[in-house]
Amino acid sequence: MTTATPQPQLQRTLTRELSQHEGQTVKLQGFLHARRDLGGVQFLVLRDVSGVAQCVGSGLTLPLPESSVEVVGAVKAHAKAPGGFEVQVQAFRVLTAAVEPPPVEIPKMEWNVNPETMLDYRVVTVRGLKERAALKVQAELLAAFRDHLINEGFTEISTPKIVSAGAEGGANLFPIDYFGHPAYLAQSPQLYKQIMVGVFERVFEVAPVYRAEEHATSRHLNEYLSLDVEMGFIESEEDVMDLETRVLAAIMTRLRERAQPELALLGATLPEVPAHIPRITLMDARQLVTEKYGHAVGGKDLDPEAERLLSQHYAETEGTDFVFVTKYPRAARPFYAHPELNADGTPDPEYTRGFDLLFRGIEITSGGQRIHDHAMLLESIAAYKLNPASLEGYTEVFKYGMPPHGGFAIGAERLTAKLLGISNVRYARAFPRDRHRLTP
Amino acid sequence: MTTATPQPQLQRTLTRELSQHEGQTVKLQGFLHARRDLGGVQFLVLRDVSGVAQCVGSGLTLPLPESSVEVVGAVKAHAKAPGGFEVQVQAFRVLTAAVEPPPVEIPKMEWNVNPETMLDYRVVTVRGLKERAALKVQAELLAAFRDHLINEGFTEISTPKIVSAGAEGGANLFPIDYFGHPAYLAQSPQLYKQIMVGVFERVFEVAPVYRAEEHATSRHLNEYLSLDVEMGFIESEEDVMDLETRVLAAIMTRLRERAQPELALLGATLPEVPAHIPRITLMDARQLVTEKYGHAVGGKDLDPEAERLLSQHYAETEGTDFVFVTKYPRAARPFYAHPELNADGTPDPEYTRGFDLLFRGIEITSGGQRIHDHAMLLESIAAYKLNPASLEGYTEVFKYGMPPHGGFAIGAERLTAKLLGISNVRYARAFPRDRHRLTP
Repeated sequence: MTTATPQPQLQRTLTRELSQHEGQTVKLQGFLHARRDLGGVQFLVLRDVSGVAQCVGSGLTLPLPESSVEVVGAVKAHAKAPGGFEVQVQAFRVLTAAVEPPPVEIPKMEWNVNPETMLDYRVVTVRGLKERAALKVQAELLAAFRDHLINEGFTEISTPKIVSAGAEGGANLFPIDYFGHPAYLAQSPQLYKQIMVGVFERVFEVAPVYRAEEHATSRHLNEYLSLDVEMGFIESEEDVMDLETRVLAAIMTRLRERAQPELALLGATLPEVPAHIPRITLMDARQLVTEKYGHAVGGKDLDPEAERLLSQHYAETEGTDFVFVTKYPRAARPFYAHPELNADGTPDPEYTRGFDLLFRGIEITSGGQRIHDHAMLLESIAAYKLNPASLEGYTEVFKYGMPPHGGFAIGAERLTAKLLGISNVRYARAFPRDRHRLTP
Repeated sequence: MTTATPQPQLQRTLTRELSQHEGQTVKLQGFLHARRDLGGVQFLVLRDVSGVAQCVGSGLTLPLPESSVEVVGAVKAHAKAPGGFEVQVQAFRVLTAAVEPPPVEIPKMEWNVNPETMLDYRVVTVRGLKERAALKVQAELLAAFRDHLINEGFTEISTPKIVSAGAEGGANLFPIDYFGHPAYLAQSPQLYKQIMVGVFERVFEVAPVYRAEEHATSRHLNEYLSLDVEMGFIESEEDVMDLETRVLAAIMTRLRERAQPELALLGATLPEVPAHIPRITLMDARQLVTEKYGHAVGGKDLDPEAERLLSQHYAETEGTDFVFVTKYPRAARPFYAHPELNADGTPDPEYTRGFDLLFRGIEITSGGQRIHDHAMLLESIAAYKLNPASLEGYTEVFKYGMPPHGGFAIGAERLTAKLLGISNVRYARAFPRDRHRLTP
């Protein structure tokens, strides 16, 4: 380890603050992002949490890239340097030398080249400027989500991820050996967030959820961060969609305020969130896509191409990247989805108060009003031909006066990826888990 | 379902806002917390997220307790009512009737009576005023933790809970079947938060962790919420203890500002966090407890009685509820703990830069500086007689210039319980998981 005299009297300066220190001597700390030795003179790029700085010195012995280093030097304006300033090195110290060259050159990485290799070496590739920018944007997104909900009187909850049965039925669960008893990783906090409406009325949770889905696509993860919301004393699912609209607006506001360098680096354009996001029923959406674009929609939902076309329609006609698709049929929703009500207040046998939110061609939310009436819930379980005994843990709380309520969930990685134009959702997670990937 | 005419023109008022509406007609919504029918006149206590309100009316048919209800009525001063105001009911509407009486009377619950029964019926007992107050305090604690760290330049991360091996070795792991491959629930984000120091320098995570510990005590949970912090470019573990001191101060400030009703309800007194929390080495602490209190300390750490006595000493002599116990011996710390350094900079073979924080007689944190030097880490793995091959996933990132770094973790439930004087940590979690409890 190189040990020059440390300069404890100097406070550390961040690279993004260089412009405030022109002509002064500063101390920078960070990673050796790049280096070039021209014999008599050495150039190095130091990367810290806030950005990069070009430094120039002479007689320096530069360690391997990614070493942790400290530079003390004078700040000079330099038009060609990143940020317009350069540091002329007076003292250079290696804090921790890298012992091997990184397996890929961090400054030259491209997401679209060898994605599997990039993920294999994720412990170091995650240091890349674009890679970390995506995760930084996600961190700001989470903060905005929580702050907005707390301001609207929501309370944060933490619910079990080890469960005795799945909230959505038995499929796609990862089994756990819980002291010799069978248990599973939770697919969703659905039941628990509903229970907690009985406690705090309005609740949210940010926590991992698990889907043991065998497919390996660019839009699915087996472990992802779910932004879950549930609110009581609503009139209908319209209240839930209104809330989600406000939450999305708060997210975009914070990203504009606090993530400009990252958005610029990634070339991302944030959407405007309209005061009222357009709403169209699923049936009308299917018809629109078929009639306008000649796309025959398969299944009971919207297929990926139909989602893309419907988003295209609203971008063209209303200039928005968002659309709520509402009134899903029961066949496309779980048993706890609240039925649509007829004019006389009786439940509609076919349609629910469930909705999806599409953003730039992809579903980023499922939500809706849930059944709160105990008798209606038991009828729904029967209509879905589910075993009421296996759902007793779920139905129990509905004996005790649950108010009308509803909520939604956003997949944090999918929303991040779509906001930033990242084609593979795995790059919106630090250490993704997929069908074939359990490390690092 | 009783259906009177709803009053959509009236905005909902919260029970804690009644004093601002004296003489006015308000609409309350909430749960029927308690009821009393004196024949000609009915009293009801309505519970909402903000508290309770006494309401009085005549000719009302009151549903079962815990039903969701709506009351419209006039606010009158009434010295004996909770909060000093009462609502004289003009219209009463049942939103959702409970179909069974609750299994326990919510207003009369006591934590110390039949704790297992209370947990069996947690889906409804969690509605109790004290039960929810504890969880509300925890929510504010989490918000304070995050907000303070964000203000100090920390970035939130989300790391995998499905892992291929344990960070602390192989013991106490819950096994998962991951598409036919063996995997485990993460005991800690230790490795991942260290990796992310290479990305953001300062990181935090709030997420569940898992310990398959067989013991069932009042201070352990098998699933708990870990408040994890890791920071780079430190000089020593002193920087980490300084940070934790500031975090704890920020938590107490927010609780004083935003959780007064809950603290009062629970009779809790918040501690003062001194600007400098006393620090004593483990060896000195053991000696002090032995000499002052005649307690022979077993093992290599502090036993629970020694923790209690050491806290008592600092409460008596320095008037503080906190003490850092420092310089743990290697035998009581994992392999990644950074050794203490001798005056000449060489590693001390016996002691580490690991610390615990005691609060009111119990350990609430482990933390310390970690090894950042690749060669030193390999030597430590050898000295601990661990298999280097099984730790390659861990050691990999240390090839790439990790800066000096350290961190700590706080168990959210244990800190909550200790702050509030709750004797069993399971009541500081909405739905605890323990050796015998997998539901609800």
